[in-house]
Amino acid sequence: MNLNAAFDYIRKNEKRYVDELIQFLRIPSISAHKDHDKDVAAALEFDKKKLESLGFKTEVWPTRAHAGLFAERIVDPAAPTVLIYGHVDVQPVDPIELWENPPFEPRIKDGAIWARGADDNKGQHYAQIAGVESVIQGGGGLPVNVKFIIESDEEFDGEAMAEVAPKHKDKLRCDVFVVSDSSFPDVDHPAITVSIRGIQAVEITIRGPAVDKHSGEWGGMLYEPIDVLRWVLQNLKDFKTGRVLVPGFYDDVQEVSAEDRKAIGARPWNDAAQARSIGVKRLFHEEGFSTLESGTIRPTLQVNGVVGGYTGEGFKTVIGSWVRAKISMRLVHNQDPGRIGQLFERYVRELVGDMGTVEFRSFGAGRPFRAEVSNPFVQAGLRALEAGFEKPPIAIGQGGSIPIVAPLVQITGAPCVLMGFGLPGDNLHAPNEHFPIGCFLGGARSAAAYLNEVSSRVGAGARR
Amino acid sequence: MNLNAAFDYIRKNEKRYVDELIQFLRIPSISAHKDHDKDVAAALEFDKKKLESLGFKTEVWPTRAHAGLFAERIVDPAAPTVLIYGHVDVQPVDPIELWENPPFEPRIKDGAIWARGADDNKGQHYAQIAGVESVIQGGGGLPVNVKFIIESDEEFDGEAMAEVAPKHKDKLRCDVFVVSDSSFPDVDHPAITVSIRGIQAVEITIRGPAVDKHSGEWGGMLYEPIDVLRWVLQNLKDFKTGRVLVPGFYDDVQEVSAEDRKAIGARPWNDAAQARSIGVKRLFHEEGFSTLESGTIRPTLQVNGVVGGYTGEGFKTVIGSWVRAKISMRLVHNQDPGRIGQLFERYVRELVGDMGTVEFRSFGAGRPFRAEVSNPFVQAGLRALEAGFEKPPIAIGQGGSIPIVAPLVQITGAPCVLMGFGLPGDNLHAPNEHFPIGCFLGGARSAAAYLNEVSSRVGAGARR
Repeated sequence: MNLNAAFDYIRKNEKRYVDELIQFLRIPSISAHKDHDKDVAAALEFDKKKLESLGFKTEVWPTRAHAGLFAERIVDPAAPTVLIYGHVDVQPVDPIELWENPPFEPRIKDGAIWARGADDNKGQHYAQIAGVESVIQGGGGLPVNVKFIIESDEEFDGEAMAEVAPKHKDKLRCDVFVVSDSSFPDVDHPAITVSIRGIQAVEITIRGPAVDKHSGEWGGMLYEPIDVLRWVLQNLKDFKTGRVLVPGFYDDVQEVSAEDRKAIGARPWNDAAQARSIGVKRLFHEEGFSTLESGTIRPTLQVNGVVGGYTGEGFKTVIGSWVRAKISMRLVHNQDPGRIGQLFERYVRELVGDMGTVEFRSFGAGRPFRAEVSNPFVQAGLRALEAGFEKPPIAIGQGGSIPIVAPLVQITGAPCVLMGFGLPGDNLHAPNEHFPIGCFLGGARSAAAYLNEVSSRVGAGARR
Repeated sequence: MNLNAAFDYIRKNEKRYVDELIQFLRIPSISAHKDHDKDVAAALEFDKKKLESLGFKTEVWPTRAHAGLFAERIVDPAAPTVLIYGHVDVQPVDPIELWENPPFEPRIKDGAIWARGADDNKGQHYAQIAGVESVIQGGGGLPVNVKFIIESDEEFDGEAMAEVAPKHKDKLRCDVFVVSDSSFPDVDHPAITVSIRGIQAVEITIRGPAVDKHSGEWGGMLYEPIDVLRWVLQNLKDFKTGRVLVPGFYDDVQEVSAEDRKAIGARPWNDAAQARSIGVKRLFHEEGFSTLESGTIRPTLQVNGVVGGYTGEGFKTVIGSWVRAKISMRLVHNQDPGRIGQLFERYVRELVGDMGTVEFRSFGAGRPFRAEVSNPFVQAGLRALEAGFEKPPIAIGQGGSIPIVAPLVQITGAPCVLMGFGLPGDNLHAPNEHFPIGCFLGGARSAAAYLNEVSSRVGAGARR
């Protein structure tokens, strides 16, 4: 294929690409709101029509929530196959009053497109589609087979697609799985994400006396649920070192190689500046690891919410009958969320003992993912980013979870390349979401370049 | 005076006394609700008219909230003076749907009067008034001077009366101050409360990042407000021993004498039965003290409420920007709530350090109170109870606070005798409040007997 010609094509079609994305963004495909179900379906249909116009065969796979779109264009069964992921559904828009323009009336301002979904994930995966189009229409045709798996449940039921995917294992067969649903650390550093954390989220409810008791009458004579909770919490994580104290928690953690640790550490980062940017005096880090490592390649535990006793205006001298905490553990390669959940539950039960009762409610789990920087498909991704953005690319770790990655890696058996095009300030999940047009077009160029890289430069040894 | 004749009078007037109390209870004197202000005034007026009918001179003292009633009948300036306390205002009635009869339509059932305020405090202080009447009308006249101080702010603004009382120091002069606003441990043990705990109530708000942060992105890199709070909590109280860890907290604690500890320990109490009654597997106690002591004559610290992060349905992986805890410390003789508040604030600031910011909001303080069991006025009280209830009385400690006691002890310089007539199951501050008629009439007899005791048997040495 002719990459320069594909890039020319992108340049000539810039305005149309942006217009198409704007049309796409007008669809209020909020998957969490039942009354937007037909919009969610319309958004999936938008991609379906677009990919069919590019010669893709498509199928819609129903899920327990909405549906997923599968598309493929096989140019040569012997050629490598690239599977590209995206999602058409978007987050709700509340608080709507904080938006500068209506979230589904996209606007171009300061070189960016402003709308719900502009970055996450319509803009990012539409950049992939635009890149594929440029290769087909401008670059002399696809040099590899391309498949798309596009879901419409990601912001509502992250496990819905993972549940049906195994049934389509043959269709999903590929040599590399590309996900554009992440971001660069800043505009000057295009990046491949080589590490994302998994998650195990649990709500615990600790109960004591059958009803709230007067704290004057009973203070000093009871195992108070709030006290028991703080006892549990102080035994779950060492406050000073940041180590999680659940026995066995670190058993399966595979340390990152010194080489990859160094690569990930190359990301520009300044503790003091980061602290200032979020309004705290200083940051924390796990003992023995940098702040950046603590937030990306190290497992941790957070209390995401806590409520118990009297929390209204004024004061009530009660010993609350119960207290509830939402707790999530961020996991790294090769921790198993199910096993971690079991260790957690057994340990918390032990800590509570007969000082109260404790109930557990699971709120979902996701496996961690890690790729080695030296992996040829990762290296191809770095080169593609350099071609697309004309800046030296880096490898980074990311602290959050992308639930679809681990199941699809498991189903396909293929390496995953996380090549997202967003920026940290794009307001994902928040009012005034936007996506720089430069990221959108650079993304399209990188997507085109990636197909070229896989076709021409990934050694045969990297394929299975 | 002739105590037997006073008792006869009570017996003959039983029905009228109960009817009068029922009239009193019909007045919905909820001091916390502005639209009941005229009912609160009407309830105070009810006592005023009654006491005037018994030859008392009355005055209404406005407070910042509502008002207080002062009444006195001086029979002989050289005779001892007994000052009796009560309050006419009542708690709100929510949840109203749990009441078996409307809270202000009193009903007699199972030998008790059921209505809001039946025990707390209309029934209890009206027993005092009935006792005083029986001495005047049946017992040959008052053998001592009697004064009443009756407030109408207790359930709404416990400090309102304490604020104006110093202005009336001369009027309040007395030899003993009697409060009927407590209860017996059970129906077989009439009791004088010789120890009540003070309180210092504070709300703290710990703040971290300016807005909630994503816990995937930031987990492991922040001093999370909920984490900082549990660090503060684990440093405020030793979970195993129950000792409060605020430096200086115990400095002013005056230990209870072995003799009084023994007297207080004579109260019938069974840990296992108490645990069962409130639905817990076992009770707690401070190291070195019995459960009962831990809940009465020992200081302690409770977290009365906590809220932070995401607490709604489902799960949000956030690091909350703030967390709030309502904390109260129960204090014992001779701890000063103001000093304890300062020690607490200084220590918590130190614990939080630069890991966040912390704000304090005070929710009121009350001094502890303790009387020695050997005090002649306490001994007079024990004998009066024995006369009134015909059961051997005991001295007990009480865990809660009665805010008016310490200021009035300070203003009057007189010993305080806490001679309440309620029972633990009377549902104070709850739906279906009630007051056994036996307690009401036994209370009236005890009130009459107390005047007799003070007049005839308290040695001159006990008076100042």
